[in-house]
Amino acid sequence: MATASSPGAPPGSAGRLITVDDPDDPRLSDYTGLTDVELRRRREPAEGLFIAEGEKVIRRARHAGYEMRSMLLSAKWVDVMRDVIDEVPAPVYAVSPELAERVTGYHVHRGALASMQRKPLPEPGELLTTARRVVIMESVNDHTNIGAIFRSAAALGMDAVLLSPDCADPLYRRSVKVSMGAVFAVPYARLDTWPRGLESVRDAGFQLLALTPDEKAVPIDEATQGGSERVALMLGAEGEGLSTRALMAADEWVRIPMAHGVDSLNVGAAAAVGFYAVTR
Amino acid sequence: MATASSPGAPPGSAGRLITVDDPDDPRLSDYTGLTDVELRRRREPAEGLFIAEGEKVIRRARHAGYEMRSMLLSAKWVDVMRDVIDEVPAPVYAVSPELAERVTGYHVHRGALASMQRKPLPEPGELLTTARRVVIMESVNDHTNIGAIFRSAAALGMDAVLLSPDCADPLYRRSVKVSMGAVFAVPYARLDTWPRGLESVRDAGFQLLALTPDEKAVPIDEATQGGSERVALMLGAEGEGLSTRALMAADEWVRIPMAHGVDSLNVGAAAAVGFYAVTR
Repeated sequence: MATASSPGAPPGSAGRLITVDDPDDPRLSDYTGLTDVELRRRREPAEGLFIAEGEKVIRRARHAGYEMRSMLLSAKWVDVMRDVIDEVPAPVYAVSPELAERVTGYHVHRGALASMQRKPLPEPGELLTTARRVVIMESVNDHTNIGAIFRSAAALGMDAVLLSPDCADPLYRRSVKVSMGAVFAVPYARLDTWPRGLESVRDAGFQLLALTPDEKAVPIDEATQGGSERVALMLGAEGEGLSTRALMAADEWVRIPMAHGVDSLNVGAAAAVGFYAVTR
Repeated sequence: MATASSPGAPPGSAGRLITVDDPDDPRLSDYTGLTDVELRRRREPAEGLFIAEGEKVIRRARHAGYEMRSMLLSAKWVDVMRDVIDEVPAPVYAVSPELAERVTGYHVHRGALASMQRKPLPEPGELLTTARRVVIMESVNDHTNIGAIFRSAAALGMDAVLLSPDCADPLYRRSVKVSMGAVFAVPYARLDTWPRGLESVRDAGFQLLALTPDEKAVPIDEATQGGSERVALMLGAEGEGLSTRALMAADEWVRIPMAHGVDSLNVGAAAAVGFYAVTR
């Protein structure tokens, strides 16, 4: 039965609404200390969970096939989420807004939190067999930026995302929220080695384009006019940009033509323009 | 003399470094309560000032011709800003980080704040005589979004920005910071009436393109392939988009083609792609 595989769900609680009024109730442990980024960064991947926040994002996570471990709702969200409550075998904890705040550490504006079970990440090779337009991020550590880049990648039709080993977690709550759930929509994988892992991308037939403000780079619309069958667009972090070794590993450097006197776009804007250019 | 027109500067203090250790010193009043958005929103335009934060932004404001009223520095920034201190007639207040925090209400990471004198805004007609690519924002109230849009507008070569009467202030501290000073680089003006003011833009020879996710809109690259001499790209706020009456006032609706199932880009990403498309 599904219930047996839902951690924290006592037998027979499947799909049932459980009112909890003790903030130390161990069944709420998936939701403790949500504002402690360091704690959650360690705990969530280790325990195989992530947190989806708000009705829309929770529904998108379910739609993308993630299994629900439990849900934490304040009373007025029970009706809104009634269909989900009826469908999932996971326990649903109804709490007061005050208790939600004591457990999570913040005022849960969106009134609904779900703890979702992670799925094993695919291997990069799996994604590369079918993708034509790929994003590769190097050392993007900011959860907001990761989320924004996924949102644009999904909207503009990029097929997959590959992450360098030191990129932040796309399933961290803030990334999920900023992406509006796009982290569920665009498949992603992590490269094991960097920059050596890029060779496997090239071997899969992709042209590696490094996005850089460097003047020596080719304007991105010129670089993509050949209509290369398979393109991987490499992006670095805000401020830093791509490392020298990543730049050296690329096939070509591309830039977004800038008006005189401006350093650069922020990474979210640059990514959006880059995706637009390589998907034309 | 310039000193006489620098509010808060006592005679003879021009260019001098003044150590202040009383948080209630009236000479620091330009900097009080910087975290109180509502207070600052009222005060700054009324008193004709705005706050530039951090070395880079302060230098860019000066470079763009804004007159400095005063500067507030913590001790270790005095050397970094020495050339500015020597050049400007405005008083420079040296304070401890603790005092800076008591006055402003937050920990001033960047260690340097300047109070700058606003300049009168140009009339829209002035900007429209020379511009070829114009951004028009409707009801963009979020200071971060305004700043991000200006940064992209500057980087991608838009010539001017026009604001609907209810857009937020581009010179609010957060907008200035997020824009990296691009609010000084791209000239902007406010339309007096909305959407009626759009007629003056059309009369100046601009084609009014309304950016919308609406399926009935033309893909933006098709709309701009004609290479219209003068284009004004209209943007609405995050979530809301353009109002119906703004859409009705446009010459053409344009959209950024989206991959299936995604609502939309965030306004910053959409703006960046839009600017890229109309400046090709």
